[in-house]
Amino acid sequence: MSLHSEQSHQLPSSVTVLGLGPMGRALASAFLDGGLRTTVWNRTPGRDRELVERGAVSAPSAEEAVAVSELIVVCVVNYDAADAILRREAVTTALKGRTVVNLTADTPGRARDTATWAAEHGVRYLDGAIMTPATTIGTPAAVFIHSGPEELYREHRPVIEKLGGTHTHLGEDIGRAAAYDIALLDIFWTAMAGYAHALAVAKAEGVTAGELAPFAQGIAAILPPLFEEFAGDVDSGSYSGEINPITSAASSMAHIIHASEAHGIDAGVMRVVEGWARRVIARGHGTDGFVRVTELLGR
Amino acid sequence: MSLHSEQSHQLPSSVTVLGLGPMGRALASAFLDGGLRTTVWNRTPGRDRELVERGAVSAPSAEEAVAVSELIVVCVVNYDAADAILRREAVTTALKGRTVVNLTADTPGRARDTATWAAEHGVRYLDGAIMTPATTIGTPAAVFIHSGPEELYREHRPVIEKLGGTHTHLGEDIGRAAAYDIALLDIFWTAMAGYAHALAVAKAEGVTAGELAPFAQGIAAILPPLFEEFAGDVDSGSYSGEINPITSAASSMAHIIHASEAHGIDAGVMRVVEGWARRVIARGHGTDGFVRVTELLGR
Ligand SMILES: NC(=O)c1ccc[n+]([C@@H]2O[C@H](COP(=O)([O-])OP(=O)(O)OC[C@H]3O[C@@H](n4cnc5c(N)ncnc54)[C@H](OP(=O)(O)O)[C@@H]3O)[C@@H](O)[C@H]2O)c1
Ligand SMILES: NC(=O)c1ccc[n+]([C@@H]2O[C@H](COP(=O)([O-])OP(=O)(O)OC[C@H]3O[C@@H](n4cnc5c(N)ncnc54)[C@H](OP(=O)(O)O)[C@@H]3O)[C@@H](O)[C@H]2O)c1
Repeated sequence: MSLHSEQSHQLPSSVTVLGLGPMGRALASAFLDGGLRTTVWNRTPGRDRELVERGAVSAPSAEEAVAVSELIVVCVVNYDAADAILRREAVTTALKGRTVVNLTADTPGRARDTATWAAEHGVRYLDGAIMTPATTIGTPAAVFIHSGPEELYREHRPVIEKLGGTHTHLGEDIGRAAAYDIALLDIFWTAMAGYAHALAVAKAEGVTAGELAPFAQGIAAILPPLFEEFAGDVDSGSYSGEINPITSAASSMAHIIHASEAHGIDAGVMRVVEGWARRVIARGHGTDGFVRVTELLGR
Repeated sequence: MSLHSEQSHQLPSSVTVLGLGPMGRALASAFLDGGLRTTVWNRTPGRDRELVERGAVSAPSAEEAVAVSELIVVCVVNYDAADAILRREAVTTALKGRTVVNLTADTPGRARDTATWAAEHGVRYLDGAIMTPATTIGTPAAVFIHSGPEELYREHRPVIEKLGGTHTHLGEDIGRAAAYDIALLDIFWTAMAGYAHALAVAKAEGVTAGELAPFAQGIAAILPPLFEEFAGDVDSGSYSGEINPITSAASSMAHIIHASEAHGIDAGVMRVVEGWARRVIARGHGTDGFVRVTELLGR
């Protein structure tokens, strides 16, 4: 055996992707770009046309898609959808001894439940999450997190890394990637909700989205150092409000609620947030920083 | 008169700061650094000690503080506080013919109301807002927005710019700075609420704030280009959900709610946001992007 064929043995040269939404297609596309024999399947047929043109193999069924690769990457809307695919008997049987990397987003509980199912059926199982949009896949901007058996992760890392970007193995606890994912999606969707709401308020005040956007980008730019500072506060349990006490934050929130509702715009989100702040103040922590609400919520 | 003294006439060399919270102190400090004769006053005495050591003049009353400068900068918690200072007869009388720059945060309505009061009392009035923390004042990172009569703004710009950072005059409508301010604070505090909530969820899952923070910073880093893209969607009224349809967003939100509540953590914010998304979907826009909620809210 030549060195060349030994190397190609070390790096499995084929992979199967189940689920061809925007993200599944991006994953399959990156595997193709990486030179892997890529087999694809999607519940609704026809989503694989472009991929097949570029060399992907279209499998007629999930069980046939699973049977051709050692590594199966699953990326569908949620674990109900993943279960509907993986837990059919023909598929479960075909999966025996193979590795599933589930890049579908859901809760840590669902990831743990799937790991239990996988162990019962002799399926090797890794969980993961994708923290950046489909457009980033195959580029350095992509961010992936993984959890599950470290050895299994190492074995498949060469293929997984064909997806580009950064990959972090967070630990053996299979639920850990989903826990990070949920927390990070919480930040993302809450921030997006704030932006969508702010655009509605701005519009009611005669300010266009395009006018507000550069300043909104400025707000986003001040978040990273504050995120780091507040993480320190939460881990140490000391919430300095010297620069900006929660009483001042609550006052700002009241203005936002008032200005929104004066235009008939639902301020439900900010009402909840102001309620958290008022409860922290009522407990005697008015001179602390806003991030003390983390402690309140965690009780 | 020499050119030199003409120049020093063009640039008024004195300023008064009313309100010495963290922000008022930062403003006064930057004026001192800029070589201006700086007079300060605060409702509660003693807050000016450090400033006086550095050369500030401490006025015994607001009316005396006002009487010594052409330009008076006000920065207190809100317009109720600003009114309590400015609308006492002795102060109003002393303000006649002088310029007030109100850097206090409040609603556009309050700014407009104050402009009316100012006009009635012969007070020249500019409104403004500070979009960055007190620690940025005097540095290039500070961001100020201003509104009101352009000529009055130009006259005082040389002094105002001693505060450092970038200054944008948004227009003659006196409420415009407050409108931007409210919208930007809406983004800021909603995002901070998302972060505080995410830290509580992470903690319940055994993930420390310090572990989550670098990934949270990564989420913040993807916001600016999305903010720009979504502003285009809102201004054009076409909300592409090709990369991430609102149905997929709603599914993520359901996971967040479920994972939070499984730990007994209030998911009130995300429940409101998911409700917005579900209403957009129910109106037949499930393939649109999440930012379509802006239109829903604006009705
Ligand atoms: N798009 C992004 O930018 C992005 C970013 C980060 C993470 N993610 C995550 O990646 C995953 C996939 O997202 P996506 O953007 O590709 O689109 P998506 O709309 O979340 O999921 C679409 C995929 O799910 C499949 N599916 C739905 N219900 C199913 C069922 N009952 N049985 C079998 N398949 C089912 C769809 O098949 P059909 O075609 O047959 O409906 C399609 O393949 C999600 O968990 C998402 O949160 C996406
Ligand atoms: N701190 C920041 O990083 C930051 C950033 C951007 C914008 N801002 C804005 O800047 C403004 C000032 O904020 P801040 O951080 O300095 O602290 P703050 O807690 O918002 O305001 C404290 C100031 O308000 C005064 N005050 C409160 N009630 C009063 C009343 N009834 N009569 C007279 N004075 C009263 C306080 O005087 P006493 O000392 O007598 O209580 C003190 O001078 C706010 O509108 C805030 O939103 C602050």
